[in-house]
Amino acid sequence: MIEIKGQSLIAGNWITPPGKTFRSFNPYKKESMYSFASCGEDEIEKAARAANSAFGQYRQLDGKSIGVFLSTIADEIEALGDQLLEVCDSETGLGLARLTGERGRTCGQLRAFAELTTKGEWVQASIDTAIPDRAPVPKPDLRRMMKPIGPVAVFGASNFPFAFSTLGGDTASALAAGNPVIVKGHPAHPATSELFAHAIAKAVEKCGLPAGVFSLLQGMGNELGTCLVKHPLIQAVGFTGSERGGRALMDIAAARPQPIPVFAEMGSINPLFVGPNTLQAQAESIATGLSGSVCMGTGQFCTSPGIVVSVASEVFETTLKTKLSEAPRGYLLNPQIAASLQAGLENLNNHPQLEWLNRADFEAGSMTPPNAVFKTSGKDFLADKALSEEVFGPVTLYVECENEAQIMEVADNLNGNLTASVHADEDRELAKKLLNVLEQKVGRVIYNSYPTGVEVCPSQQHGGPYPASSVSTSTSVGTGAIVRFARFVAYQGAPDALLPDALKNDNPLGIYRLVNGELTTASI
Amino acid sequence: MIEIKGQSLIAGNWITPPGKTFRSFNPYKKESMYSFASCGEDEIEKAARAANSAFGQYRQLDGKSIGVFLSTIADEIEALGDQLLEVCDSETGLGLARLTGERGRTCGQLRAFAELTTKGEWVQASIDTAIPDRAPVPKPDLRRMMKPIGPVAVFGASNFPFAFSTLGGDTASALAAGNPVIVKGHPAHPATSELFAHAIAKAVEKCGLPAGVFSLLQGMGNELGTCLVKHPLIQAVGFTGSERGGRALMDIAAARPQPIPVFAEMGSINPLFVGPNTLQAQAESIATGLSGSVCMGTGQFCTSPGIVVSVASEVFETTLKTKLSEAPRGYLLNPQIAASLQAGLENLNNHPQLEWLNRADFEAGSMTPPNAVFKTSGKDFLADKALSEEVFGPVTLYVECENEAQIMEVADNLNGNLTASVHADEDRELAKKLLNVLEQKVGRVIYNSYPTGVEVCPSQQHGGPYPASSVSTSTSVGTGAIVRFARFVAYQGAPDALLPDALKNDNPLGIYRLVNGELTTASI
Repeated sequence: MIEIKGQSLIAGNWITPPGKTFRSFNPYKKESMYSFASCGEDEIEKAARAANSAFGQYRQLDGKSIGVFLSTIADEIEALGDQLLEVCDSETGLGLARLTGERGRTCGQLRAFAELTTKGEWVQASIDTAIPDRAPVPKPDLRRMMKPIGPVAVFGASNFPFAFSTLGGDTASALAAGNPVIVKGHPAHPATSELFAHAIAKAVEKCGLPAGVFSLLQGMGNELGTCLVKHPLIQAVGFTGSERGGRALMDIAAARPQPIPVFAEMGSINPLFVGPNTLQAQAESIATGLSGSVCMGTGQFCTSPGIVVSVASEVFETTLKTKLSEAPRGYLLNPQIAASLQAGLENLNNHPQLEWLNRADFEAGSMTPPNAVFKTSGKDFLADKALSEEVFGPVTLYVECENEAQIMEVADNLNGNLTASVHADEDRELAKKLLNVLEQKVGRVIYNSYPTGVEVCPSQQHGGPYPASSVSTSTSVGTGAIVRFARFVAYQGAPDALLPDALKNDNPLGIYRLVNGELTTASI
Repeated sequence: MIEIKGQSLIAGNWITPPGKTFRSFNPYKKESMYSFASCGEDEIEKAARAANSAFGQYRQLDGKSIGVFLSTIADEIEALGDQLLEVCDSETGLGLARLTGERGRTCGQLRAFAELTTKGEWVQASIDTAIPDRAPVPKPDLRRMMKPIGPVAVFGASNFPFAFSTLGGDTASALAAGNPVIVKGHPAHPATSELFAHAIAKAVEKCGLPAGVFSLLQGMGNELGTCLVKHPLIQAVGFTGSERGGRALMDIAAARPQPIPVFAEMGSINPLFVGPNTLQAQAESIATGLSGSVCMGTGQFCTSPGIVVSVASEVFETTLKTKLSEAPRGYLLNPQIAASLQAGLENLNNHPQLEWLNRADFEAGSMTPPNAVFKTSGKDFLADKALSEEVFGPVTLYVECENEAQIMEVADNLNGNLTASVHADEDRELAKKLLNVLEQKVGRVIYNSYPTGVEVCPSQQHGGPYPASSVSTSTSVGTGAIVRFARFVAYQGAPDALLPDALKNDNPLGIYRLVNGELTTASI
């Protein structure tokens, strides 16, 4: 058992900063727990210098050694055993079953990145060979690949305390690309973060890496994050959270003397579209599936389906209402989210064009919200942009359209979203039209299924047009996330001995490379 | 012969906007020529709506049809014949030989993108097949590829009136990715832009495409560009020009309700490093090569070598001075650049720690500047950050270091640059150390050669850390530029019939795809 000391980790040194203290909160018992002190500018300065100095060594590590490091982190997370699950459950109320699954995903994604760097193909190596006698000018030898960019600041997310927090996807992908990471721990689960920091500190030591490759700065309030993003040695930012929080970081980063990229995964209402004929044929099963997706993680998923768009169906409406009302109430992560959901539900309830189909109490101070479904017409939904804003929690809005044309109008007027789902097996023409519009609005289009449950794999796209994410081309889930923290460098006319392995003539890594425009594993 | 009417082209309609008029300038005769009227918000609105509406059709075009369109544009540019060269020469003073070469490059890059889209592999297709019986949850079928992002605003550059202006690399890559383009023409060569607009209008017509796929808005002053970047239908920006101009656009784009990416290729001093032993062995040949690179295009290249960093060498200094003084003076593009170079040379001349080795007159109003070399010590260079700023023109600064350590110190303190060159065949240890530092500072490292002359090929990287470019991972030259104007979309569980060709089971395009993490051309 590791003693939770309420500390931060700066390049291998555990410290108790002099800043304001804060405590994590047990949603089951509704009481405060572990006490932590907040880091400030001094700690940022130390962590950033250590990261920058570690970068010199870490960026030169070969892919295999990075792979060993990432796998070792996964091993050390598993070695934390039940303590990690129990501490995190007490800080988040997510339950041991969910956290066991999320730990599996977290270690799985570290190992997926380990496999990726070991293979070494992710650098997108490209070689154009010289044509010395080309007229009017000789063609030079040019070779290009991705290289790490430098120290990355990662903001832990509250809703995925394992998979998108201290050692989550952003940290894994930044480390995989060859960058040191400074995590700004989420103040809602600082003890969980402390345990993770122990795991990675061990892995850093076992692999003989410079300690500056990882730091964890605990703290609450916005100042710590603001100063971290402003620090001149930070070269990129990974963030998962609210649109407001993400946009604030984007604005800070854009205003720096040297602007840096912020990869923020933010709000999304993840519309689910059901074709009229399909609704007729599958009203119960879709209502049941949707209800399960809405309740998952007490609705605290970025991909939670916030609206369902279709025509009228009493069976659908009744089933959805019943299933949501019958589903057990889950726990919310923390009192801030509870308060914000309370306000959100009240707003929706007071909206003149909305009907709360399964109205239920949600008393102030309660951590277990009702699973709520509201209803409105397609026309009223289109008339009020505010209804397209995310309500974080187990809430969905049934947008009852008059016909297919109105369903398409809702699709046409969508903001950027992470996902959109389409159930239209019996409406194939509509499916085609919806696909054509939705692929312009979202990162991932889902057929005959539900948006929650984000597979970690190379073909995943978790990111969509603003405000779903800040850089719509990037994904924060899946191995494709690695390219966010790397940039291309080209070498012209360089002797083979001075080239990185990925670009050497005899292809020592055995990877696919674009050679004169054609993919091949051949040597030059 | 096409009559130059001083017009703009909005979605197939030639118009004379009601805005302020401006004229292009003949640097040979020092007199004004063609008169043009400036577009304003009305014209932007029309062009943006037309682009957005054209996007619906154009984005669905298959790669082969886009390829035909791009090749047709190239054909139509060639069909403009000598008129294009002569009009452009009269507006830029670049000379017929250079412009003939640049026209070849411009048509060549359009055809290179045509080849790329015809092949269709650039979309980075990835497929992860389903595992329905996986525990604890089934694995869904996921497929991902790049899709166009929407209307792109392109700012023409003054220094490459063909290759980086109206139908230059930015326009070619944005069109190739499937996006409509609105060009804000550079006011220094509006007649050239008008001719190009004729060429693309013909290609649009021949290919039966919606006219909104291309518009050219002529104008001078910053307002037109500002309003264009602010327009909500614009989804990305391509720009080549000054750091000041690029940063202004970055700031505008970042402050939009929906921020959009700006791909700005900006300032760079393109340092050239010469190892002490190599300088000893090759002083004359390097000085000669460098002189040629400095004078190329009258120094008006983004990759012009603005500083050379080495130790003392009388032979090198004398040769460089002599070669530059003997080289014929070239013409500057326009009076603004001439005035700014005049001021820049005066600043350098008045700098107490700088010596102008080949001092020569550059009278006010002259369009033909001297090819200038200044000298300073490594210590003085390091002490004054202002010396790292670009002086646009045929000017270079010999930074004479005391030793290797000081050469490395200069490298360590570099800002982001497009390129750095290394001549160190006789200094292999230094070469290694330089490479390690320089690849962190620039987009392209060049061995034993000079930075001017940027090859258009898949392995080119023309873009580096800020302020060399706004998005350091992207390139504005070479086929890799296409991904700037596309983003990933994933399809989960979609029926084969609804998938784009690149993701269909039987791989109808015959392209390499990542299937369950392995590159293959196999069917599923």
